[in-house]
Amino acid sequence: MQPHELSLAEAADAIRARRLSPVELVDSVLGRVEEAEPHLGAYVTVAAEQARRAAAEAEHEVAQGCYRGPLHGIPMALKDLIDVSGMPTTASSRVRAGHRATADSAVAARLGAAGAILLGKTHTHEFAFGLTTPQTRNAWDPGRVAGGSSGGSAVAVASGTATFALGTDTGGSIRVPAALNGVVGLKPTYGLVPRHGVTSLSWSLDHVGPITRTVEDAALVLTALAGHDPRDPASLSAPAADYRPGPATDLTGLRVGLPRTYYFDHVHPQVEAAVRSAVAQLEALGAQLVEVDIPMTRYIQATQWGLMVPEAGSYHEGSLRTVPERYQEDVRILLEASELMSAGDYLRAQRARTLMRAEWARMLERVDVIAAPTVPMPAVRADEQTVTWPDGTTESVSDAYVRLCAPANITGVPALTVPVGHDAAGMPIGLQLLGRPLDEPTLLRVGHAYQQTRPGPRGHTVRSRVSSPSP
Amino acid sequence: MQPHELSLAEAADAIRARRLSPVELVDSVLGRVEEAEPHLGAYVTVAAEQARRAAAEAEHEVAQGCYRGPLHGIPMALKDLIDVSGMPTTASSRVRAGHRATADSAVAARLGAAGAILLGKTHTHEFAFGLTTPQTRNAWDPGRVAGGSSGGSAVAVASGTATFALGTDTGGSIRVPAALNGVVGLKPTYGLVPRHGVTSLSWSLDHVGPITRTVEDAALVLTALAGHDPRDPASLSAPAADYRPGPATDLTGLRVGLPRTYYFDHVHPQVEAAVRSAVAQLEALGAQLVEVDIPMTRYIQATQWGLMVPEAGSYHEGSLRTVPERYQEDVRILLEASELMSAGDYLRAQRARTLMRAEWARMLERVDVIAAPTVPMPAVRADEQTVTWPDGTTESVSDAYVRLCAPANITGVPALTVPVGHDAAGMPIGLQLLGRPLDEPTLLRVGHAYQQTRPGPRGHTVRSRVSSPSP
Repeated sequence: MQPHELSLAEAADAIRARRLSPVELVDSVLGRVEEAEPHLGAYVTVAAEQARRAAAEAEHEVAQGCYRGPLHGIPMALKDLIDVSGMPTTASSRVRAGHRATADSAVAARLGAAGAILLGKTHTHEFAFGLTTPQTRNAWDPGRVAGGSSGGSAVAVASGTATFALGTDTGGSIRVPAALNGVVGLKPTYGLVPRHGVTSLSWSLDHVGPITRTVEDAALVLTALAGHDPRDPASLSAPAADYRPGPATDLTGLRVGLPRTYYFDHVHPQVEAAVRSAVAQLEALGAQLVEVDIPMTRYIQATQWGLMVPEAGSYHEGSLRTVPERYQEDVRILLEASELMSAGDYLRAQRARTLMRAEWARMLERVDVIAAPTVPMPAVRADEQTVTWPDGTTESVSDAYVRLCAPANITGVPALTVPVGHDAAGMPIGLQLLGRPLDEPTLLRVGHAYQQTRPGPRGHTVRSRVSSPSP
Repeated sequence: MQPHELSLAEAADAIRARRLSPVELVDSVLGRVEEAEPHLGAYVTVAAEQARRAAAEAEHEVAQGCYRGPLHGIPMALKDLIDVSGMPTTASSRVRAGHRATADSAVAARLGAAGAILLGKTHTHEFAFGLTTPQTRNAWDPGRVAGGSSGGSAVAVASGTATFALGTDTGGSIRVPAALNGVVGLKPTYGLVPRHGVTSLSWSLDHVGPITRTVEDAALVLTALAGHDPRDPASLSAPAADYRPGPATDLTGLRVGLPRTYYFDHVHPQVEAAVRSAVAQLEALGAQLVEVDIPMTRYIQATQWGLMVPEAGSYHEGSLRTVPERYQEDVRILLEASELMSAGDYLRAQRARTLMRAEWARMLERVDVIAAPTVPMPAVRADEQTVTWPDGTTESVSDAYVRLCAPANITGVPALTVPVGHDAAGMPIGLQLLGRPLDEPTLLRVGHAYQQTRPGPRGHTVRSRVSSPSP
């Protein structure tokens, strides 16, 4: 196996044991970037020289016996909404022409302190306001969407051009591209990972989190990211914790909530089958299945958009007046729509959120996690704008991809997506696990148990072929 | 001294020592209600029979050696926004005709469990949306405003028709009437006292708190009120505490911030003189004075109104459509104005609040409390709509009364008003003490030290004359 194919945990073990040097690992990943990136378009910027210098330094530190922990010498990519001192934060937008960050974001600083090596910045749907990331191609089929908005990060991790990456998630933007590219994505509890220095889409829904090849890897990254930062007004003061899950795969005593409503409505049958088969595996590991009714489902879409659109409009107010022509049309229209919203509309969404949080808290007293699809259908072709369901209902692709992710943004509960198979066209399918606020340990334990016990030779796959034709 | 003239602490000591029975105390206060209430209009409802029965029961409990603590057998009044099971919550509004609460509010339940005896419900400016409480007359001069919106509660405490009362405070509604009637009012830290079962004006600014004759009394009531309740989404999980201040009056080491800006602008000279003289007393007790500059002062008014108006409009949306004619005109106009506000206006106010909170936290690292006037002028005559300052500036009475109170609502910091003298017309003046979030103990210690050491025979006065002519 090539070093660029290793999971973070595997690479970390090899580096700590000095079986692998950070220089070899970074060289391998940069070689993969050279080979695959022209076909993928995952990166806005690759900082190869800077990464090689950092790798040499990391190697030197290890040789001196100074090992910083599991991220030491691991090459990673940051969604290009995340500030790194001295680099532009483009947000994949012409609006940011000439931008240069003067300080590290909280998460970039924490990853740097943990020894991770920045390879580059990855594409986002412009300012994170979309679900496809049109600049980037799906790692499994270049004719299909990468998903978004953290499309570049998910494709980089899936294709071996980064060992892990960070994304942001306002309505599914970590989980959607992770699911569509067959990797793991974690949207942590609202407020657990500080957002200082990260471009905002909608501050009451925005989250930063890891995209990785395995659940264990997500836990290792979360351990470095979590913790209070007073510069983010929503940052929680939860104590630091080690999120790495233990090796036990026995789930006896765990109550898995299986939604009777909402999460299996208008879902592709192959997605439903793969998710139910994964849930059966959790049951085989000892979990008890409990049917649950998702509360207030008819308010989810209005609440998500009712919060997101005005907050995004408020954030972009200045540049929308001065340089509207620099936005892509889809994003500009959404931002302009915010000017038509009344304070009353926004407050109705805020009040619905408060009620939904309380109802979800009540539901999560009865079960430990909820298991559901991450998205209702795998990656669509890049030219598809809508999806039509068997009952004749038509839905925009964006609405469909947001639909099953939004509840975790509105309520702030943590949500993890784990790959659980492929559809007939070979496109990946994601299982979503949702849990109680700050109960990431349970989500990660369940996801890790699943990955350790699922049939097949390994816990993760790097998509080695590039530009394979669509079947 | 008549029992109705006792402070809560004095009455509690006498009840515990069996020198006074709850029945005698309640009878004395009800006698005072009969005498004074026709001239004051403080009460919406007096539940005399119910109070007498509760007093007999409280007396029986004490006789059996079951003493619940300092509120046991103490007669009190609740602002008529606060639900009591089986009674209407009128909000002093025709909109609430036929209303009946089916459960106790969190604070009514806590006071009941502590042994306090409900005398009745007091007038509020309709739905708390105003600063005068037109139904109620000032306890010191019937030709002047009671202040609002908790006007009935403050007048009841000042005139001896309740030993203590609760009010609510969204832009000064506890502190303004307390200051105008010469009593103590405490707006606690946002989230410290749960609001479940209390009619909302503006949920991100609303607070419930005590109105009492002394600072010590306010501490005794706060001890019974504070603590988490999951039914209020903003309720903090601060641990229970005994807020009663110790007897020490030495303030050595205390840093008192004296505002160089904002709090002494457009303030009546007699108010300024009384406040500065009270501050000199704190200095004489050992406090160190530190000049502070209040941050972001030009955003205060827009932020207060920008949050309050849309939230109030959202709360009243239904009845404003169905029964607009049942509102008083002043309140209806403010509620209708909310329909003209955009989501962007509201979000600007929310963002300004976030910045103000951070700036205030920074300022409150340098000082322990801030000392300032509570309101810029004493109670105006009931027919005055505006006030004109020496530089020719004209301001509405409402704007003037909100102006110095709003920062504590916006930032959520605790604020205590303490009577510090009278103007030439004999009308009371209030000193406002503001502190760090959850640092009520320091505010109460400073206010209590002031009241124990100020010149004069007693710590509080009940206004015994009623319907005295204006001088």
